[in-house]
Amino acid sequence: MSKLKLNITMSIDGFVAGPDQSLEQPLGAGGEELHGWLVPLKTFRESHGQEGGEVNANTPFAEEILAGAGATIMGRNMFGGGPGQWEESWKGWWGDDPPYHHPVFVLTHHPRKPLEMDGGTTFHFVTDGIESALEQARAAAGERNVSLGGGASVAQQYLAAGLLDELVVSVVPNLLGGGARLFENLGNAKLEQVESVGGPGVTHIRYVRA
Amino acid sequence: MSKLKLNITMSIDGFVAGPDQSLEQPLGAGGEELHGWLVPLKTFRESHGQEGGEVNANTPFAEEILAGAGATIMGRNMFGGGPGQWEESWKGWWGDDPPYHHPVFVLTHHPRKPLEMDGGTTFHFVTDGIESALEQARAAAGERNVSLGGGASVAQQYLAAGLLDELVVSVVPNLLGGGARLFENLGNAKLEQVESVGGPGVTHIRYVRA
Repeated sequence: MSKLKLNITMSIDGFVAGPDQSLEQPLGAGGEELHGWLVPLKTFRESHGQEGGEVNANTPFAEEILAGAGATIMGRNMFGGGPGQWEESWKGWWGDDPPYHHPVFVLTHHPRKPLEMDGGTTFHFVTDGIESALEQARAAAGERNVSLGGGASVAQQYLAAGLLDELVVSVVPNLLGGGARLFENLGNAKLEQVESVGGPGVTHIRYVRA
Repeated sequence: MSKLKLNITMSIDGFVAGPDQSLEQPLGAGGEELHGWLVPLKTFRESHGQEGGEVNANTPFAEEILAGAGATIMGRNMFGGGPGQWEESWKGWWGDDPPYHHPVFVLTHHPRKPLEMDGGTTFHFVTDGIESALEQARAAAGERNVSLGGGASVAQQYLAAGLLDELVVSVVPNLLGGGARLFENLGNAKLEQVESVGGPGVTHIRYVRA
């Protein structure tokens, strides 16, 4: 069966988004800097239709994020944070051709018809919970894995339910001082570390269920 | 000049000690498990007068912790947490022959005469602040480095003051769900990652000031 995987970048003080998230800064204050390891990469630039870029030890992790999955699950804030964005005109943060290129299942309490974008991305809005979203995403992904897109609260729900098969935390040397914590509301638990790779400005640690 | 270095083990959810620290469990609930990578090592066992043990990718980091420094600075809780322990009879957690074997400077508000233990460890009690402690420790360490022993609040004070030269965070796959956070009260900041090494059950990330 396809795995549910989360690849996420975390500041060394534990945040996956900074404080004061808003339409203008969806990742909060300092949040964009978390992805300073990803954005200069050739793999990332290609996925955004740009030329050039670096190839280094971080490249396989960027490839895993950008090309590995057959479907994505994300939370409502990841698709669009504000109430006004639940108008039918809101189509996510990514423009007409989102970088997913596969079905995306958005967890929400607001029913909405599927939204088909350019380039193979269709947003499906799931209102009946995380297990249903996972089931639908697995069906859509076929042999490929399902990527958990975030944010933090959705990640915590899947972690707490024991439904996350694999987790790659890319730890960056930034301190955000506040914002959305990845590992919270999870109590005392243990993962199993299966890989550690350091690249320029980041350390990728792969975990599975212990 | 000798460097001020902190080597510390942190749970993936950000804690260097668990909740409910007490005389019975000085590292709090689950806190002892943080050092599960260190305790089985030959280097660690030797430093505690025991035979046997493992040699693996974690060994250089254990050696760095156990044998590298010429002096140590620690906080009052690290030496002894409870008020009763400030009686002259309290000699720290480590028995008659503490594993430091060099001068240890304890930051405290309680003046006390230096306490000479077996094996070359002498505890000096510093009441006039972190800069004074660092100056005294550097003088004692000579050409060798000064190790910052913790806990979290002392580490934060040296980090915030820009006095910490090097920081090795050993990230373990445990979640403690509460306790003492290493990176807190530090606002928005950035370190520079200079090394990442994965060993059994832990990833060591070395940072310097950015």
